[in-house]
Amino acid sequence: MTQLLRAQTPGSVREQVSAWRSAGQRIALVPTMGNLHDGHLSLIRIAAEHADRVVCSIFVNPTQFGPSEDIASYPRTPEADDALLAEQGIVDLLFVPSEDDIYPHGLNGSVVVNLPALVGELCGRSRPGHFNGVASVVLRLLNIVTPDVLVVGRKDYQQAILLARMIRDLHLPVEILLGDTVREADGLAMSSRNQYLTPAEREVAGTLHAVLQELAVQLRNGGASIDKLAPRAREQLVSAGFKPDYIELRRARELGAVTSKLPDEPLILLGAAWLGRARLIDNVPV
Amino acid sequence: MTQLLRAQTPGSVREQVSAWRSAGQRIALVPTMGNLHDGHLSLIRIAAEHADRVVCSIFVNPTQFGPSEDIASYPRTPEADDALLAEQGIVDLLFVPSEDDIYPHGLNGSVVVNLPALVGELCGRSRPGHFNGVASVVLRLLNIVTPDVLVVGRKDYQQAILLARMIRDLHLPVEILLGDTVREADGLAMSSRNQYLTPAEREVAGTLHAVLQELAVQLRNGGASIDKLAPRAREQLVSAGFKPDYIELRRARELGAVTSKLPDEPLILLGAAWLGRARLIDNVPV
Repeated sequence: MTQLLRAQTPGSVREQVSAWRSAGQRIALVPTMGNLHDGHLSLIRIAAEHADRVVCSIFVNPTQFGPSEDIASYPRTPEADDALLAEQGIVDLLFVPSEDDIYPHGLNGSVVVNLPALVGELCGRSRPGHFNGVASVVLRLLNIVTPDVLVVGRKDYQQAILLARMIRDLHLPVEILLGDTVREADGLAMSSRNQYLTPAEREVAGTLHAVLQELAVQLRNGGASIDKLAPRAREQLVSAGFKPDYIELRRARELGAVTSKLPDEPLILLGAAWLGRARLIDNVPV
Repeated sequence: MTQLLRAQTPGSVREQVSAWRSAGQRIALVPTMGNLHDGHLSLIRIAAEHADRVVCSIFVNPTQFGPSEDIASYPRTPEADDALLAEQGIVDLLFVPSEDDIYPHGLNGSVVVNLPALVGELCGRSRPGHFNGVASVVLRLLNIVTPDVLVVGRKDYQQAILLARMIRDLHLPVEILLGDTVREADGLAMSSRNQYLTPAEREVAGTLHAVLQELAVQLRNGGASIDKLAPRAREQLVSAGFKPDYIELRRARELGAVTSKLPDEPLILLGAAWLGRARLIDNVPV
């Protein structure tokens, strides 16, 4: 049972981490936007398996929200998050910085990380600037915490692939681990944004995962191509009340496009759809 | 007298640096584009004063050259550089990576660092993309070498200020030190690009420094404003055969603009001008 330490400033995080490092301990970082659920706890357990000390950050990062997005209403539950982590006894250090702590030169005067072309595909088409914002904050968190291991969730698969790319491309001395998606009983991937769903929407929200799963089975059986099957999947989503954004089959490793003949390498099926106020995303291996 | 080690890959640099760090030693990095002269040697001596181990990198970084710039003709003297560093006995590790070592995903697929607005001012006006290219390579070198101290030259003052900004803004755990400009007898700041000068151009090249010095004295004496004095300075440069780019007075700390009344803080006078094939830059404190 670990006692939870708390830090707000980059300086105090550094001091603590450097004491641990001097003692030869390995550090893991789990960056979050708070409003912690079982998905986050699963990442934290993975972190604890791969390091001696676990740092969890909570920061609702303004640079990854578009002007029309939900930063104002994004669920914030700092007391509950703190209590949950203290009770779990896995996290060693909870880092809750302010906007000024992370962006000392303000949002407009800040250095921005521009990721390669994949930022404009999949979720990037409806969320311009989102992934560059994620990269810009994760790079800062990595520089502050200097962890040996970074743990992120497989639910945000495009984000995970882009962060892995940034890490390799910028030669950041950190290993990235992907934690499996944690789901509700009906298959809905856990997400803070699920709270936006009305009870009626929540009833049908599992359809996104069901549709992707069914599509993956059909693709595995080799009956038809994604181009043939995707329109039917979109229809199923529309029937359930979703407004589909995309359903795409990609190479799992780098999210490269899949052309006619399926390549002999892991593939992944990704989908995003609005349901009421919530934009839900999910993915399944093929 | 230090024995010079050599490394080409990020992995081998990391291995060496991590051995030094385990022994509690401080590391300094001096990034260069090679073709080493006394200016570089002066930075290397500063590095040795502030760290136990000095790493010098030589990499002619393609992302900081514009399409019409001189990357093809930029002077490359790898054997002479190696011999000079071995003879000096100050540098511990010479890091000479290939383009693939630094940019494993190629130049087009690489993560780019976008610095704030100052990139488009002063030298940035005639060299679009230049400083973002510098930042993109220095960030990678910092991540590979993970030095405690970064030493850069005051001659490239805007570059130094932008790198300091990047370091603070991205919370990079490194201290930046600026080395004074080393000059030829006539005041010309040492630079690899001085080699582009014909003997006749070299004769007058010291005029840039002389003009800036004279202007600084006039400003210190408070006789007239920079707006009054700069046109005469430009004329002097034109008379000597230069094509002036800019002469500007700025706040030294962050290169902020100076308005009518001179603020009570350190100021710096910066100038750039073409002389034949060479674009010369210089700066003097006011």
